Amino acid sequence: MSASAGAVAGAFGTRCYNPALMPAPLVVQKFGGSSVAGADRIRRVARRIARERAAGSDLVVVVSAMGDTTDELLALAAAITDEPDSRELDVLLSTGEHQSATLLSMALHALGVPAISLTGAQAGIQTDGRYGKARIANVDPARVHDEIAAGKVVIVAGFQGQSAADIDKAETTTLGRGGSDTTAVALAARLGADRCQVFTDVKGIYTADPRIVTDARQLSVIGYEEMLELAHQGAQVMQVRAVELGWVNDVVIEVLSSFEDAPGTLIEEDPLVEQRNKVRGLAHDRNVAKITLVAVPDRPGVAYAIFAPLADAGINVDMIVQNVGHGGSTDQSFTVNRSDLARAKRIIEPIVRELGFQEMTTDSAVAKVSIVGAGIHNAPGYAARMFGTLADAGVNIEMISTSEVRITCIIAEDDVETAVRALHSAFELEKPDAVDATSGAGPGRAARAG
Amino acid sequence: MSASAGAVAGAFGTRCYNPALMPAPLVVQKFGGSSVAGADRIRRVARRIARERAAGSDLVVVVSAMGDTTDELLALAAAITDEPDSRELDVLLSTGEHQSATLLSMALHALGVPAISLTGAQAGIQTDGRYGKARIANVDPARVHDEIAAGKVVIVAGFQGQSAADIDKAETTTLGRGGSDTTAVALAARLGADRCQVFTDVKGIYTADPRIVTDARQLSVIGYEEMLELAHQGAQVMQVRAVELGWVNDVVIEVLSSFEDAPGTLIEEDPLVEQRNKVRGLAHDRNVAKITLVAVPDRPGVAYAIFAPLADAGINVDMIVQNVGHGGSTDQSFTVNRSDLARAKRIIEPIVRELGFQEMTTDSAVAKVSIVGAGIHNAPGYAARMFGTLADAGVNIEMISTSEVRITCIIAEDDVETAVRALHSAFELEKPDAVDATSGAGPGRAARAG
Repeated sequence: MSASAGAVAGAFGTRCYNPALMPAPLVVQKFGGSSVAGADRIRRVARRIARERAAGSDLVVVVSAMGDTTDELLALAAAITDEPDSRELDVLLSTGEHQSATLLSMALHALGVPAISLTGAQAGIQTDGRYGKARIANVDPARVHDEIAAGKVVIVAGFQGQSAADIDKAETTTLGRGGSDTTAVALAARLGADRCQVFTDVKGIYTADPRIVTDARQLSVIGYEEMLELAHQGAQVMQVRAVELGWVNDVVIEVLSSFEDAPGTLIEEDPLVEQRNKVRGLAHDRNVAKITLVAVPDRPGVAYAIFAPLADAGINVDMIVQNVGHGGSTDQSFTVNRSDLARAKRIIEPIVRELGFQEMTTDSAVAKVSIVGAGIHNAPGYAARMFGTLADAGVNIEMISTSEVRITCIIAEDDVETAVRALHSAFELEKPDAVDATSGAGPGRAARAG
Repeated sequence: MSASAGAVAGAFGTRCYNPALMPAPLVVQKFGGSSVAGADRIRRVARRIARERAAGSDLVVVVSAMGDTTDELLALAAAITDEPDSRELDVLLSTGEHQSATLLSMALHALGVPAISLTGAQAGIQTDGRYGKARIANVDPARVHDEIAAGKVVIVAGFQGQSAADIDKAETTTLGRGGSDTTAVALAARLGADRCQVFTDVKGIYTADPRIVTDARQLSVIGYEEMLELAHQGAQVMQVRAVELGWVNDVVIEVLSSFEDAPGTLIEEDPLVEQRNKVRGLAHDRNVAKITLVAVPDRPGVAYAIFAPLADAGINVDMIVQNVGHGGSTDQSFTVNRSDLARAKRIIEPIVRELGFQEMTTDSAVAKVSIVGAGIHNAPGYAARMFGTLADAGVNIEMISTSEVRITCIIAEDDVETAVRALHSAFELEKPDAVDATSGAGPGRAARAG
């Protein structure tokens, strides 16, 4: 896997390990947009990479676009047309990561560290070709291997791939928001990396949003499934798809801060799940709107008539609640992303008329709050304690949904902070749990990530 | 070369010509950075392209980066490091043209015009692989042909190519400043285009800079050689390499304004050169510095010792004047781009010491002023009239050089405007000449370009 250390010049050029004794560990690191926002931060990231390399690692580094670049490019496209062509938009957006990747490579060169930037296509990220939301179909790491073997730190533009291996047919595709996490985990899986580190602007995964709960506690370890539920339910730190990909491929992901040298949170298969049986964290999400269809005819095919057109339009329907029918009709409520509400209404209105519903009402001042923990669904008392805590805090529950590891309530948006604080305290999340007590921090912990 | 007009939808979708009667003419258009600076200008360019297409043309459109994008990207790189890696810099800079190309394509889609953006690599622009100053080695227009045949306007990111046809080895290379002109002319040559139009922020080629000479006149036609000399001597409108490429491949280039619908200037082989024998235009250039080596040993090999290291460093030496030797030594003066002066001094200083020159002096407050016209070198009186005019205007001449179609004087920078105005008047450039009288404007002129 490595590397002619002797040929390398400059302050960070010499590496401590002895390649004759053991192969260099391969580390995949991902730096998000805030970590590379501006020249100073890019140089700081470069110094961190140089230290890791000097300690003996081979490195593949995935970067997002700098700061608000993606939003600025979207705004440029929006200034041209309301509905930008999806192929062209993907090429446009991919330039953001090309820029950050080249700048980081330059910063490494300036430190005397051999480096090369690769586009997603050059790094062999092959996708299924769906613009704006491509899935990774395959990773062909030949060029990445070659560059590592040549002693270089390989910088890969995240968030993007190409739709075919043949350049004559290949089109640039992007993986959707947060796609750089997915790029990093996919590369770590394919390369058999020893570590996969996702650097962000927070220190790791917390029991709740620390901006709301002052004694929210950083978790040292969290299971894939718990992390998936937290991410689904609004925790912004990790992309759902990246966690899924890590789970399927058994990639241990470490989430940590790019701004300080502190241990982060490991996302990994959690052997203690069965015994633990405890709430691990809270999530909340304000990007929610509720749609209620009043007096829906209670006959087969109606749900399909409503939800199929929404799915066709790419609108994700989250919670669905149907009241018990009375007199041949029922009330149906469901939630969508708040940003999809206007589009969802336009799609449903003609269906409402056609199927003869009484009316459609919408509420965009709602939010989700969830408790997450492996095993809580089958254990008694968690749901009751959640509902009781919210009632005691004066928070009304509008809808409820559950999964194996999660209970979610829809509440008024104004009640979010009250609800999160009350639940954090009720489930004693400020106290370290067994997992944290056994795993601890420091070198022992870092070794577990390997 | 064309085109399923019937399949095309939208306001500009229908095309006027009848493909059964004749093939659509193929037009290559190039829009510079100021023409695509911002969403409004990009939409204006799209409307112009849509009109051309509605009139029946197949179109290949080459774009530069928007406005100051290239300078902003250079500033980003400079904020990272003083000496950015040249490979990474080329990838970084190429994103500017990717962005403008995709935005222009989106704007055409919004008008109902089928369009597709291609990177330089996708458009088959293959280069010799020299970063930052690549030459075009070949153009493989297969994909461009395919997209035209599919009825699309093809938008090509200018200024860039790739160093090999094989994606595993291909590296992005840029063609140097103004390289988009070269991209356009190379594509026009390879595609056998009927017209090659370069849209800029001026109306065409003028007898002198209209910001200095109020009665400067736009030329309707200029020969390749004259245009080359004007460009070499400081006229900024067209890139020298693009004019050379047009000359070699017999591509008629039309320079015209992207902001108004007015005839521009045709650059073409000029059959009237022999008869005309007249000054056609003036150029001036302030990007000049003079270096004088005093008391240079007058022996073989000295010039090589001075100029070879400058050439190796990529510093272009323009005018060289060597005074008659006296007592075994001579004085040598030469000019370089002002931006290269500091580097040139660093290179020459050790040579000065080694070869035992008396001293090196430099002057960066000089400028070049040139008269250009085919045949003037061999005709009597032009040089004399130029020198006399400058003397009458109180302008001192420091150095002189000539070519077949040009006489250039180095003068003090402060005298540039005085000199240009005096020469414009002395050579009666405000009066239309025979070429302009016979070619005229309007439809007849446009036909000549075909």
